[in-house]
Amino acid sequence: MTTPPVPRLFTFVGGASGAWRVEQTRPVVGESLPAAAALGVVAAGAGDAASEGDAVWRLRGIVSNERYVERAEKEALVAKQEGLGRPACTRAALIPIRKNAAWWALTQDERRHVFEAQSQHIAIGLRYLPAIARRLHHCRDLGPDEPFDFLTWFEFTPADAGAFEDLVGTLRDSPEWRFVDREVDIRLSR
Amino acid sequence: MTTPPVPRLFTFVGGASGAWRVEQTRPVVGESLPAAAALGVVAAGAGDAASEGDAVWRLRGIVSNERYVERAEKEALVAKQEGLGRPACTRAALIPIRKNAAWWALTQDERRHVFEAQSQHIAIGLRYLPAIARRLHHCRDLGPDEPFDFLTWFEFTPADAGAFEDLVGTLRDSPEWRFVDREVDIRLSR
Repeated sequence: MTTPPVPRLFTFVGGASGAWRVEQTRPVVGESLPAAAALGVVAAGAGDAASEGDAVWRLRGIVSNERYVERAEKEALVAKQEGLGRPACTRAALIPIRKNAAWWALTQDERRHVFEAQSQHIAIGLRYLPAIARRLHHCRDLGPDEPFDFLTWFEFTPADAGAFEDLVGTLRDSPEWRFVDREVDIRLSR
Repeated sequence: MTTPPVPRLFTFVGGASGAWRVEQTRPVVGESLPAAAALGVVAAGAGDAASEGDAVWRLRGIVSNERYVERAEKEALVAKQEGLGRPACTRAALIPIRKNAAWWALTQDERRHVFEAQSQHIAIGLRYLPAIARRLHHCRDLGPDEPFDFLTWFEFTPADAGAFEDLVGTLRDSPEWRFVDREVDIRLSR
């Protein structure tokens, strides 16, 4: 390899301190998370992040291979997307999501059909690039007892906050969201 | 839920004792594992299995949703397959596998194409049902430092040992195996 390995495992820590100020913690479906004043993002497992003793919750997720995106879609996404950490992106959202057993019992073709043919998940996300930068973290296969299946992370400018509302609203109205049985929406600023 | 949760996380422990006797430990691609006399399978994480102090290696894997199987294939598999633990199945194999970065950079359609259109991975496995029972465990998303991506586990009778050689030989000759950069073949009996 010519480049050092990119971190894959991240821990999101809600607590008294952190780089992001929590503006709102809202349950969308199912149980919420305890309110925290701030959020930190640590590129490490929960064990490594243990020094942050003021945590009221910790959620771990790992960046993995893409599960639904096809080559033509990937090319379109890569051509438009920008990375996390842009200085003007002073708004963020952490949206942990769990899908129900019916979703996980679907076969690959069935999940892809709901995800894109019915719900246009990729096409909708593409519409908001490059304004809304995102990173998807998987939790389901970290272990058998994770509280969520995914941690979705978004960054955008204050001027794009309305576009972000459109994005999440459109996805929540899609057939894919019938399979969501827990979702918490945490809004952040810095 | 009407049934208790089925265990998803398993730890395979190579050591001085265990339900299975190790007949052979052979590197197929890349680095082998230290030879162990016996193998135990624990339905728990490595932490829970810590009492087995004689371990020479431990490998964890989690049963997850299927990544490539489509509905018609799933129906065909379910109709023919039988479970693990059949008393006559006194032969087993644990084959840990790691795929290379090129595999994980493929999009879903590209991986499916190599997996089934080029390599007929599902069709080949179906041919050996119900004789060869199997369970696939994923490791790649347990954390960033797992030594393998998958732990494949097979059980069969002594009479089907030849069929099992055909199965693994056919898969190793397939285009999918060009992406395998580490594979160890551990043969077991009880």
